[in-house]
Amino acid sequence: MNSLAELFEHTLQDVYYAENAITKALPKVAKAARSAELKKAAEEHLSETKDQIKKLDQVFKSIGTKSAGEKCDAIEGLLKEADGLMSEAKGAALDAGLLAACQAVEHYEIARYGSLREWAKDLGHDEAHRLLSEILDQEKATNNKLTNLAVTAINKGTSARKAA
Amino acid sequence: MNSLAELFEHTLQDVYYAENAITKALPKVAKAARSAELKKAAEEHLSETKDQIKKLDQVFKSIGTKSAGEKCDAIEGLLKEADGLMSEAKGAALDAGLLAACQAVEHYEIARYGSLREWAKDLGHDEAHRLLSEILDQEKATNNKLTNLAVTAINKGTSARKAA
Repeated sequence: MNSLAELFEHTLQDVYYAENAITKALPKVAKAARSAELKKAAEEHLSETKDQIKKLDQVFKSIGTKSAGEKCDAIEGLLKEADGLMSEAKGAALDAGLLAACQAVEHYEIARYGSLREWAKDLGHDEAHRLLSEILDQEKATNNKLTNLAVTAINKGTSARKAA
Repeated sequence: MNSLAELFEHTLQDVYYAENAITKALPKVAKAARSAELKKAAEEHLSETKDQIKKLDQVFKSIGTKSAGEKCDAIEGLLKEADGLMSEAKGAALDAGLLAACQAVEHYEIARYGSLREWAKDLGHDEAHRLLSEILDQEKATNNKLTNLAVTAINKGTSARKAA
């Protein structure tokens, strides 16, 4: 990789792999979650992620290449952490930990789409820039939703803990 | 892990491991970076990270436990990605990619300290809450600095690319 164009394509393949990995992880999160709100959030984000994969297909098409994924070590690590939590945590720790794991994944995506969007702009890929900006805005909205849910869920966890 | 208190301590060990791993990675980034600004940013963040580890020591002490790290899969994945980049990328792709990798690490830390800070508040750990808020603010400031640098570095990369 020598040029920004090559880095852009490589990172696009990286997030394509990541989004596909996330579609496999979210049903496990929805199943493991105790709270109805977290289950719902995971299901909604699954549907949104599938939509984002279609948008990424359009991004690949707009730059004249085929959609492809390339193994992304970062998302592998983030999802491994979530898996560990699902097998180790119970009770109040499970939902709070799962929410935190989802937020860490969202933050990863926000970082990646932020870079990709800037690179698309710099490379003059107008359609890719527009699509990546749309995905970035969605990821930010999801993160805000999770943050609100986290605060609520944590408060609930506290009530349960205090009552226990 | 059943309680928020156990999740808090576990996640604290997770970020302690992560910050220590970052102190080993940053000198490699500083060495690999082509631009003087990126080298300087990596060196400054190394000094800040060492300071944050001391703050984490205070957090552990404030909750009556000893500082300890526990292997964090997420940071391992994020740093593996940065390592891959340092061996595969050259020219304009190297600095832009390294900056993006640093931003992904910052976002991971922002997510983690955001959760930890909320949990500390919820658990009534006032000193931990104050210290974690300080670290979170530093991470956000570093991320903003990297974002500004990214835009500048990218623009420079473009000029170089266009001139090439």
